[in-house]
Amino acid sequence: MNLKQNIKVIAFDADDTLWENEPYFEEIEKKFCVLMEDFLSHQSISQEVFRIQISNLPLYGYGIKPYILSLIETAIEISGKNLPIEIIEKILQYGKELLSKPIVLIDGIEEVLKQLHGKYKLIVVTKGDLLDQHRKLHNSGLGLFFHHIEVLSEKADEDYRKLLKRLEIQPEEFYMVGNSLKSDVLPVLNIGGYATHIPFRTTWAHERIDFEIKHDNFSSVKKVSDILGLL
Amino acid sequence: MNLKQNIKVIAFDADDTLWENEPYFEEIEKKFCVLMEDFLSHQSISQEVFRIQISNLPLYGYGIKPYILSLIETAIEISGKNLPIEIIEKILQYGKELLSKPIVLIDGIEEVLKQLHGKYKLIVVTKGDLLDQHRKLHNSGLGLFFHHIEVLSEKADEDYRKLLKRLEIQPEEFYMVGNSLKSDVLPVLNIGGYATHIPFRTTWAHERIDFEIKHDNFSSVKKVSDILGLL
Repeated sequence: MNLKQNIKVIAFDADDTLWENEPYFEEIEKKFCVLMEDFLSHQSISQEVFRIQISNLPLYGYGIKPYILSLIETAIEISGKNLPIEIIEKILQYGKELLSKPIVLIDGIEEVLKQLHGKYKLIVVTKGDLLDQHRKLHNSGLGLFFHHIEVLSEKADEDYRKLLKRLEIQPEEFYMVGNSLKSDVLPVLNIGGYATHIPFRTTWAHERIDFEIKHDNFSSVKKVSDILGLL
Repeated sequence: MNLKQNIKVIAFDADDTLWENEPYFEEIEKKFCVLMEDFLSHQSISQEVFRIQISNLPLYGYGIKPYILSLIETAIEISGKNLPIEIIEKILQYGKELLSKPIVLIDGIEEVLKQLHGKYKLIVVTKGDLLDQHRKLHNSGLGLFFHHIEVLSEKADEDYRKLLKRLEIQPEEFYMVGNSLKSDVLPVLNIGGYATHIPFRTTWAHERIDFEIKHDNFSSVKKVSDILGLL
């Protein structure tokens, strides 16, 4: 990547870029599979969860509340409506648990933000639930490094274009850092910005892509502190 | 109200100011009461819904998904966990219905926005769910009149202060129009802005206040077209 010196805004994805997120969902999904194992195998349950989640995505959007509503729908469907009500109660409880999880920062992120703070306008650009993402940023203690947070309904080309318009900057002044090639990298490259991928140890199936990216404005690094060498 | 001539931004609340919203929730709540009437009176059911909704507010926030999760919780609680699973299924369906309701514009709003467009920076300032409010604005056909939409987790003094900072304007350059005295008027007056109240035919209990407002920067009008005379 040949990162120009005119970067004005560095945008960080939130979940699994600033703090851990996906492992919490995986933990709850494991519990859900155990809860429902009288009806189907763990693998089939997970497949059903994913299918229903994706079919609800246009209506529900991203985040914990959509996930919980989809788990309830999955449970009813898998059970053939033959479901003890205590299971629904448990699922609601999982949701409240998920919404109250402590923030575990990604290794090295605080130091990186400290170094970049004041030199660039730093923002958070994330999908998910508005209230939940604001709360996580607040609880993370990282809020002071960021100019503000942008919670988007989607992270497609058009959403980034609108974002740059709001920020009143050009694509070549924008640099995005995140763990999702699909959401944090591809659309940013498409509109002429710069992007660095930092893989997290696990990625939600919906965010995976099955091809390699080669692009002058793109790089992939192992840990977040590596981006300091690029700037 | 003595509206100064230096207003730069006019902000409109969304639900029940631009389009109808509360009646849809009331319609679903009536259906829910019928669904649950074997367990409690309609009035007691509504009270329980409200109690659980408010207790979940800090964790769930505003909007349809929190409402549906709270209805499910209420149903389980009211029934003493003795609940046919079909009722949960129905509630999920109510949620999808609510999320897909057609937009019914408030009388006269389009004409008002047409007249103000180009003379002021018009924005939408709303609580609720990010995806849902963006979708409603899009489907309303009013999007072209607005510079952008701000979806807030809360509408307290501090939220408006941060908003003005983002907009880079002074409080006396800000004018808010909405149907909630609690969310659209009081906090705006508190921080030194202007506000006009346009009562909608029904108000959610959580948004009601039980005192009168008298303030130089405040007015109350019957219909949205009345604000043209104030500017």
